[in-house]
Parts: sequence; C-alpha cells; structure tokens
Amino acid sequence: MTISTLTLADARTIIDAAEAKASEVGQPMNIAVVDVGGNVISHARMDGAWLGGIDISINKAFTARAFDIETKELGENSQPGQQYYGIVASNRNRIMIFAGGIPITRDGEVVGALGVSGGTGEQDQSVAEAGVNAL
Amino acid sequence: MTISTLTLADARTIIDAAEAKASEVGQPMNIAVVDVGGNVISHARMDGAWLGGIDISINKAFTARAFDIETKELGENSQPGQQYYGIVASNRNRIMIFAGGIPITRDGEVVGALGVSGGTGEQDQSVAEAGVNAL
Amino acid sequence: MTISTLTLADARTIIDAAEAKASEVGQPMNIAVVDVGGNVISHARMDGAWLGGIDISINKAFTARAFDIETKELGENSQPGQQYYGIVASNRNRIMIFAGGIPITRDGEVVGALGVSGGTGEQDQSVAEAGVNAL
Amino acid sequence: MTISTLTLADARTIIDAAEAKASEVGQPMNIAVVDVGGNVISHARMDGAWLGGIDISINKAFTARAFDIETKELGENSQPGQQYYGIVASNRNRIMIFAGGIPITRDGEVVGALGVSGGTGEQDQSVAEAGVNAL
Repeated sequence: MTISTLTLADARTIIDAAEAKASEVGQPMNIAVVDVGGNVISHARMDGAWLGGIDISINKAFTARAFDIETKELGENSQPGQQYYGIVASNRNRIMIFAGGIPITRDGEVVGALGVSGGTGEQDQSVAEAGVNAL
Repeated sequence: MTISTLTLADARTIIDAAEAKASEVGQPMNIAVVDVGGNVISHARMDGAWLGGIDISINKAFTARAFDIETKELGENSQPGQQYYGIVASNRNRIMIFAGGIPITRDGEVVGALGVSGGTGEQDQSVAEAGVNAL
Repeated sequence: MTISTLTLADARTIIDAAEAKASEVGQPMNIAVVDVGGNVISHARMDGAWLGGIDISINKAFTARAFDIETKELGENSQPGQQYYGIVASNRNRIMIFAGGIPITRDGEVVGALGVSGGTGEQDQSVAEAGVNAL
Repeated sequence: MTISTLTLADARTIIDAAEAKASEVGQPMNIAVVDVGGNVISHARMDGAWLGGIDISINKAFTARAFDIETKELGENSQPGQQYYGIVASNRNRIMIFAGGIPITRDGEVVGALGVSGGTGEQDQSVAEAGVNAL
C-alpha cells in the first residue's frame, strides 16, 4: 500500500506562509509540521515567540494528524460532559485540545499536519490556516 | 486459586467481530484486548484508523479491566463534581473515561476487557459491544 | 511524495509466520508490527508469553524502523565505548538495543518493522526473521 | 546584564550549511538548533532521515548547550568508570553522549548549540561541524 506524505520542501512552504501571517498579525509564533506518520518534519520558533510553545506547536500538529481533526474542534468535543472528555490523558501527554492544529490534506487525503502556538486561540488558528492554505 | 482469563484465540474472535462491526459502521478502528491481569493480549489497527487511537484503545481496555466497569460509565462518574473526578491522573496516564472500553465476562466473572477507538463515542461503543458479544 | 507502508493484512501475515516459528522453537512470544511511520499496526501475545515482552516487542519494532536497522546490530554499536552508546536515553524510553527487531523492506524500501520478545536473543531473532521472510 | 543568543535567521543559516554537508556526505539528517537558553529555535528532518533522529538531534543540541561541551567529548567522559558515567539519567532523558552535538560560540561566548542525527558518529560530527562553521 502506498500513502502520500509531505516533504521537507512542503513543510518549509507551509512554515513560510504561517510566518508571514504571524508577522502580519504581529505575534511571533512557534510553527511545526508533521508527516503522515505524525513525526516532526520541521519546527521554527520566531524571534520572541513563547518558549512554552515549542512543545505545544509540535503536539498540536501531532494531535491534528493523530485524529485527522482540527485541535479546535477536538477541543469542543473534549470539554466536561462531551464525548472525548479525558482524551488529554492519552498518547503520553501529546494531545492538545485548543485551537492551532490543522490536518493537511492533498487530493482529499490527510498527508500530515501543522501546529501553531504563540498567541490567543484566534491568532494561532488564523496563522495555522494561512500555513495550510499555502500548499 | 484459579482465575479465568482469555486466550489469544479468544482475543482474535473478539477482534474479528469488532472489525466486522466497524466495517459495517464504515469507520476504521483500533481494537485491543487485555487479559484478566489488564495486560494486552492483542491489538489491531484497521487500515486508515486513527494513529492516536492505538494508545487509546489499549488504555480503554486496561481501564475497563482495572475497575471492572465500562469506560462510558466511568466517564459519567468522572465529570467535574462527580465521585471519580480526577481519576485520569492515576495509573500513569492509562485511564480513559469515555465510551469504548468494556469488561469481558465469562460465567459472571471478569476475564479481561476490550477497548475500541476510532470514531464517535457512539460508534466506538457499538463496535466494542459487538466484540464483547462474540465470545 | 508517496511512500509505501504495510496494511493490517500484511501485519497479520507476518505475525502468523512468526507465531508458527515460535511454536516450532517451543517458546511463546510477543510479536508486534509497526508501519512506515513507526506506529503500531498489530500486536499479539501468545498464550504463556512474557508480560514484560508486550512493551519490548512494540519498542523493538519501533526502534528497527526509527533507525532502519536491526536492533541486534544497533545493540552492537551501543555498547560502552561504541558510537551509539547512550542511545537508550532517547525517544522517550522506546529504544531497544538487543536482538529481535528487524526492519521490513519491500522493493528495497523500508515499509515498517517487526519486533519479537519472549525468549533468548537468539530465539527472538530467529522468530523475527521468520516473520520478515513471510512477506 | 545582556546575553548573546541566536536568531531564527542564524539557526537557518546553520541548518542550511549542515544540510548541504549532509547532502555531500550522502546521508539525510535531522538537524536542530537551540538558543542560549537550551530551547529549540528550529529543527529540520531531511527527506529519508531517521525518525528516531528527531528526538536525538534536539537532545544533542540541548546537551551541548547544557554543559557547553561537544557531545562527543561528553561521551568520552561518560563511559563506565569515567567521571560523568550515569549522566544520562539526568535532565529527563535529554542527555545524549555520542557525537553530533556542538556548542555555538560568538566572540568566545556560547550562544546556543547544534545537534545532528542520521548517520554514523563520524558523519553526524562532520555535518555538525559544517553547520557550526557557517556562522
């Protein structure tokens, strides 16, 4: 069986676009891209971005691929009383349930994911969307 | 003292039935079976199932045996304000508190458990029930 | 970019062959197969096999794919004074440096890996080889 | 007090040079750069590089800055019987004691570090040296 994945060149195209958006938004960000297997291809921390966002950006990307879902949407389903409440305890503390992680698709197939961390949920989400749209 | 447990052959019968149900539901799943000691006997990830569900299916099975309870029911008791709220911090992050884990009984005795992860709580639960009923 | 990986059907073919060899050797084993991304596709613990081998078989398979090398060979390079001495501290305790993990190749490309745990290094290795040769 | 550190632009200059050397050597690599605080600025996994090297490259860079020493040299001091034997148990499994991690200095002061993982110790070391020399 063959599957599609992202190259390092793809990851850089995505990161460049996310960085441009973060500069426009005026908030430095951590940006990470994982491949189809959920493994990191590349990460970049813009000057002045949160130290705590290194891990979060990587884990948002992992989460988005691990469940083929935006972390924002997973978060809505993981609140108390919702169907995935408690999911953060799984996968060795790598599940992030707030905005900024988005699966990357090509021809309708998930080929990897992008994670962004550095600002408000809204800022992270807009930067992640800019990254994903660059491909 | 003797205790009853499941064999690898039992686990496969259960996984086969769960897989058939997952195919019927149209959602690929991770399916795991643990023995009376809570230790994994077998796990299978159907083609296209969530990567993040490997860990979750195994841990749902562990949890169902660890407390001899369906994870769905444990979840209802683990919401904020409920009697087991905070239980996810125990057992080295292996406690899952949402639908898809079911103890397996034989002659009224728990002999192991099944865990399923790959779709909505409802889908996971229905696939787990099909698995348990196969024995 | 497309890459080749293993299906659940492939994993089962491999596990069946390894199991047959383990029965011939007379030592029950844990057998695990990971895909091209290092993520578990399937695991089986034969009746009577070591409980401690669940984790080891999965991690041997992970290691063999993580470095595209047999764990036996990695182990020889990870002894005191050798070039990879200390590698076990990496990758969140998932690196196994003794015999029983083998990359699985198809048309010269690594598409996943197999890990076996349950007996002596020699036994594990022979069972793993039987599994790999089944594909 | 002011301290000197690396920018994302510096990190990219270093990674580009390391990548060029890795291509020359013919071995795809994971390359990571940390700042003066030991925190990742950027990581890149070349197409086809080891999955297991993601963590190792990051941790080699961390280690080189954590002790302001090349990981190769630290390794020589961490063999059984040597003065730092056992250091791998510290710092939450982030200490790497084999070649490929090098502190980055500017005006005689350590400002960060580079870590490389993907080949033999000799290959990793030569790629890391090319990276450091680019600044």
